[in-house]
Amino acid sequence: MTINITPVAEKLDSPKMNYAGWTHSIKRSVLREMLAVVSRPGILSFAGGLPAPELFPAEEFSQAVEFVLAKDPRALQYGPPYLPLKRHIVELMSQRGVTCYEDQVFVTTGAQQALNVLTRLFLNHGGEVIVEELVYTGMQQALSGYGANVITVPTDLEKGMDVNAVEFHLADGRHPAFLYAIPYAHNPLGVSITTSRAAKVVELAHTYGVPIVEDDPYGFLSYDDEASLPLRALDDQWVIYVGSFSKILAPALRLGWMVVPKGLIQKLTVLKEALDLETSALIQRSVSAYLDAGHLPGHLARLRKEYRIRRDTMLASMERLFPSAAHWTTPSGGMFIWVELPVHINTTELLRIAVEDEQVAFIPGSAFSASSGSSISGNNEQPDNCLRLNFSNSKPDDIEQGMAGLGRILHRFC
Amino acid sequence: MTINITPVAEKLDSPKMNYAGWTHSIKRSVLREMLAVVSRPGILSFAGGLPAPELFPAEEFSQAVEFVLAKDPRALQYGPPYLPLKRHIVELMSQRGVTCYEDQVFVTTGAQQALNVLTRLFLNHGGEVIVEELVYTGMQQALSGYGANVITVPTDLEKGMDVNAVEFHLADGRHPAFLYAIPYAHNPLGVSITTSRAAKVVELAHTYGVPIVEDDPYGFLSYDDEASLPLRALDDQWVIYVGSFSKILAPALRLGWMVVPKGLIQKLTVLKEALDLETSALIQRSVSAYLDAGHLPGHLARLRKEYRIRRDTMLASMERLFPSAAHWTTPSGGMFIWVELPVHINTTELLRIAVEDEQVAFIPGSAFSASSGSSISGNNEQPDNCLRLNFSNSKPDDIEQGMAGLGRILHRFC
Repeated sequence: MTINITPVAEKLDSPKMNYAGWTHSIKRSVLREMLAVVSRPGILSFAGGLPAPELFPAEEFSQAVEFVLAKDPRALQYGPPYLPLKRHIVELMSQRGVTCYEDQVFVTTGAQQALNVLTRLFLNHGGEVIVEELVYTGMQQALSGYGANVITVPTDLEKGMDVNAVEFHLADGRHPAFLYAIPYAHNPLGVSITTSRAAKVVELAHTYGVPIVEDDPYGFLSYDDEASLPLRALDDQWVIYVGSFSKILAPALRLGWMVVPKGLIQKLTVLKEALDLETSALIQRSVSAYLDAGHLPGHLARLRKEYRIRRDTMLASMERLFPSAAHWTTPSGGMFIWVELPVHINTTELLRIAVEDEQVAFIPGSAFSASSGSSISGNNEQPDNCLRLNFSNSKPDDIEQGMAGLGRILHRFC
Repeated sequence: MTINITPVAEKLDSPKMNYAGWTHSIKRSVLREMLAVVSRPGILSFAGGLPAPELFPAEEFSQAVEFVLAKDPRALQYGPPYLPLKRHIVELMSQRGVTCYEDQVFVTTGAQQALNVLTRLFLNHGGEVIVEELVYTGMQQALSGYGANVITVPTDLEKGMDVNAVEFHLADGRHPAFLYAIPYAHNPLGVSITTSRAAKVVELAHTYGVPIVEDDPYGFLSYDDEASLPLRALDDQWVIYVGSFSKILAPALRLGWMVVPKGLIQKLTVLKEALDLETSALIQRSVSAYLDAGHLPGHLARLRKEYRIRRDTMLASMERLFPSAAHWTTPSGGMFIWVELPVHINTTELLRIAVEDEQVAFIPGSAFSASSGSSISGNNEQPDNCLRLNFSNSKPDDIEQGMAGLGRILHRFC
């Protein structure tokens, strides 16, 4: 079997059409391109960022939809954001240590839409943003097409974002439109920011007047103690919180939210209307009914228990089966482990071999590189010798088998 | 009772935040702002573009969701566009007289997303587009923020878009990124384009290399004969068709589609991923299951029959109760009737009086004005003496009562 992970060449039916200039440079997210390739039957894939489908609360959610469609004539109509859902989100946020109010909650069609809307809100064409050198691909996509000048900062694999690097850029006179971060259970790195670094970055946001876009999809997926407090718990003025039901209920709901200063709601509403008018009333009301029924706490407990087993299985298998030259992060939550290999190993090439010889797949680290950025440290080489492993989407037996296969490959090269 | 339909003033929690420059000029869609005001209890509203909620196929759709959630483990997961749904869309298109293939179908989160993605695809910042002087507000919103130079052309209330005006601009050296049209059952005008004008505009698209974005939300809602053929039936190269399940099933599905040259699919996929990653697998699979069960033809027949009654009731009431100085369109499909009053009447002011004195609401014509445009004809005055009436969202008795109230108001001023 051979695989081809270079982007598919464009073959246009209508070669005469003129597209907006910036679109000539767009190519499909390398990550999503790879996912299409490595999701073939027979491959043990640790590539995607997918939740475990066998843990979806399909039956309870089905009951919620049935209830709503039987009782609520507005469930299929156009309508404003559903206030009872906002109340549930306020309650969820309090479980994350965040005090907020319904009029600060903005419902979105998944967290990706929040990233898009916030980019539109804050970023002038050609303006600056600060992101980590290794950054969630969806944020890279949200920035594409706005000519963003991406300033990157390094991330310490045990302590999180390098806040001194952030301070350097700000003190140096940079005026980013916003700073983007996944402080807890980082994607792709699996690291969580330390308390002192969290306090520092929020202080910097205040001092320099830079909004922080805090992406927290994994805040409810903590496996050791409670997840560390989000930045929004430290500040309600400069931190914009982005949450998602994709990882705690199901991605196909396409339901997320923001917590914002309430004065932003009106502008965000207009920006969102231009994108998709509004988020499905049926989904909003069904999720609200599911939460009314009290299903979430038990479901989250099941998710945490099962994902903890999978994480521990993966870490123990790696410890046992990987060569000593490999190093990796130990995430306290989320879905990902980040692996660093000796610098002579190129993980894009390694993926080809792993899929062909062992039917095992992962995402090469280079997929997450915000490569167009600058850096104060010179520490933004392409992470060509790194890879990301997902542990949430595979059962423990498959994890052990997959790590054994990957271990065999690694021993050939390390 | 008093109403205030001026946009709500911005009150910001965080006055120090800097927003992207263009956002300072954004205000909420006048139409959606008005809808919030006039949807109070006790008001007979002909303002919104809402389908009749009592005709939603709630029970059949609930069964479809239940079936999918019980049988299909991928219904709650991330996943690629659902091929069986695309097959259904191909079949629907054939009923509209359009031959197309699955690999030309692009699924969107409602038709609004299609308008947004197409604007991103075709329009360079500051580039030109051609729209009618009176245009669907969602298209205006999709264009906002891209610095579009909007060229407007008039619309004849019996024959549709003025294609000679289109030709004038193109022959004059304008190079619009695209031309936008609702050829059938226009929103807000209710007019359908004539066969000869349709042929002419498609010919112009070919000759000048200008894509046409054809918005066809009402193509399946025809009340006399079959709806006239869409432009896409005349050309598969330069016409991009935008369809929607919002008006034929339910808006809360947030499900639409495009039919495009297949070479565009890859670029559109990337553009859409930046917006919301993908359209809900649950919704795609549930709609597909609903269509599998064969419910749609009977449902469409019911919609057509009931909406025909409502249209005819409204037209007959207007004929009986409105002053002779009022004139209006006779739509063969869709949801709207456009009313022209004597030029001394300002319908924004009239709305205030109609709501206060008769508890009747409509949308003033000015809400649909693409006012920033230019025109060859000098015929783009603000349509301040016009108004739009919706007939799909009110029962016949309410339509008669509402037209009686509006007639009394009109007799005071005409």
